[in-house]
Amino acid sequence: MSEHPEHGEGGKYSVKGKEFTRDSRYITTRVTEDGAEGYPVEPGRYRLIAARACPWANRTIIVRRLLGLEDVLSLGLPGPTHDARSWTFDLDPGGKDPVLGISRLQEAYFKRQPDYPRGITVPAIVDTTTGAVATNDFAQITLDFSTEWRDHHREGAPDLLPAAHRAEIDEVNRRVFTEVNNGVYRCGFAGSQEAYDEAYGRLWTALDWLEERLTGRRYLVGDTITEADVRLFTTLVRFDPVYHGHFKCNRDRLSGMPALWGYARDLFQTPGFGDTVDFAQIKEHYYVVHRDINPTGIVPQGPDLSDWTSPHGREALGGSPFGTGTPPGPVRESERVDPAHTPLR
Amino acid sequence: MSEHPEHGEGGKYSVKGKEFTRDSRYITTRVTEDGAEGYPVEPGRYRLIAARACPWANRTIIVRRLLGLEDVLSLGLPGPTHDARSWTFDLDPGGKDPVLGISRLQEAYFKRQPDYPRGITVPAIVDTTTGAVATNDFAQITLDFSTEWRDHHREGAPDLLPAAHRAEIDEVNRRVFTEVNNGVYRCGFAGSQEAYDEAYGRLWTALDWLEERLTGRRYLVGDTITEADVRLFTTLVRFDPVYHGHFKCNRDRLSGMPALWGYARDLFQTPGFGDTVDFAQIKEHYYVVHRDINPTGIVPQGPDLSDWTSPHGREALGGSPFGTGTPPGPVRESERVDPAHTPLR
Repeated sequence: MSEHPEHGEGGKYSVKGKEFTRDSRYITTRVTEDGAEGYPVEPGRYRLIAARACPWANRTIIVRRLLGLEDVLSLGLPGPTHDARSWTFDLDPGGKDPVLGISRLQEAYFKRQPDYPRGITVPAIVDTTTGAVATNDFAQITLDFSTEWRDHHREGAPDLLPAAHRAEIDEVNRRVFTEVNNGVYRCGFAGSQEAYDEAYGRLWTALDWLEERLTGRRYLVGDTITEADVRLFTTLVRFDPVYHGHFKCNRDRLSGMPALWGYARDLFQTPGFGDTVDFAQIKEHYYVVHRDINPTGIVPQGPDLSDWTSPHGREALGGSPFGTGTPPGPVRESERVDPAHTPLR
Repeated sequence: MSEHPEHGEGGKYSVKGKEFTRDSRYITTRVTEDGAEGYPVEPGRYRLIAARACPWANRTIIVRRLLGLEDVLSLGLPGPTHDARSWTFDLDPGGKDPVLGISRLQEAYFKRQPDYPRGITVPAIVDTTTGAVATNDFAQITLDFSTEWRDHHREGAPDLLPAAHRAEIDEVNRRVFTEVNNGVYRCGFAGSQEAYDEAYGRLWTALDWLEERLTGRRYLVGDTITEADVRLFTTLVRFDPVYHGHFKCNRDRLSGMPALWGYARDLFQTPGFGDTVDFAQIKEHYYVVHRDINPTGIVPQGPDLSDWTSPHGREALGGSPFGTGTPPGPVRESERVDPAHTPLR
């Protein structure tokens, strides 16, 4: 998702005097097992477009990998920066996505709806038979990976939405979304001191709640990784490199909150999480794209991120990341993050 | 001093494509014991104008207090923000300095030289008999407090420039000035990624050197506080609240460097240092004034600063802050920092 579809056009993310509000209008058709909405699950038919920089897209890369959907759903990766209107395939040879043959993701949106008026966001699932976006409803996509694509999961795939915990997962996800995932943006794009101050208070109230919750338990819900952990992780991994400074979420660094810091490193070191993270692209994205809050476009060199691979000691809390399942195997060669971009010592 | 006299006019601090260079042209006449330059030391004649927000001015407030010059040299305090051309006395009743009777410090510069063309900087020493600036040569002012004003020091004033260590103090000061005091500005006002990257490297090389130097010794030079400590302190105390995020000096927070963090807290807790620091004014100054790197003018609420008063354990390294002298007494009522602005629990 672009951070701020309704204001991001023309490069304006922070609107003077206004609280940040996220555009929540998406292309809500779903790719389902029964094809009831015109998009049946079908191996090889769809392409997931998901910039590594974007936290909402990062979720889909993690879940796709945890569930082993790589062979049935290909992955297109726009570069970390985008122009005022669209993510672009500037990392691909010739600047075109090799499957879709387009330079700008906007083209796939226009194939779905000419003059599509809203933000050109990632993640998006594109139907390769038409080249049109099937859905960009980021909150639904990962849920559907777990439920609608179940027949195509790898052997040993974890259950990220265990029925016994589903209500609790939804409840945690709601609070994490409004207060944390979106809360950092509310701080960063606040259009007034008052809006910022209120956003900052809400964010830290939620982070204190999470710090307490995670002090005695290894994962957010139950004793295995779930969708709830994926959703919190993609914000936490961006916290020190971006949100702390760029979005002024600076009461503490993540490393100043022992439970959250241990939890984030535990996940980072779990196959399927850290191996999807590209710190260099993350930093470049935020600092270069949001010129209205970082006019120079200069990307900070810090912070030192090498301790993401340090021992976290969270095993002592019990739990088992994959439950009765197994970790995913190595990342396939073509999808590996440039080792220079992320410390994985 | 304003941070960037040659570029700060019109609110531009960072100049595209350029490395930051500091204007080093000052009014270099000195206030001396013999009055050789037209400004003889004389109790009650001069007024020191020194905004609490400014690190260069903060030096003079500290040294004035350590040496006990309060009764012979009065203090005027401009507010934390200034317009494109001048610091202003917006905190004083009626918006005028009660002794000089002016609203904008620029007026005292113009009394010295009509159409004074350079930055209207603090600290400045104003001759109250004419209302004109006698000197704004910040690097010389504190040295002269130690040497030229010696007859007026309080009983028990420390020797901040001990002759036996003078050469070493000068040497340390040179490196600290170019690499640290000014180094943080070189990062923050870099006009290109290349200029920033180079500035960042220089800064951290110097901070690593200081971290090592201060690991085994309590103070920078000798075993008492000196001018060298004053000069480093005013940068360190601004590091986490401002330079880390606003100037992108973010490899570590100060608290990530154990010796520097202990050293900074040791000084902060020494009478004459922390009691001159106004964190709220410091943050407001940088984030509000530098609109070209923080266009929203929003001031972050973080970081949590309450641990500046936590135990530092540096006494174990030996040394004695005031040598054979004594600490200054309590801050006089009229010069106390608003307790709500700075944690001194």
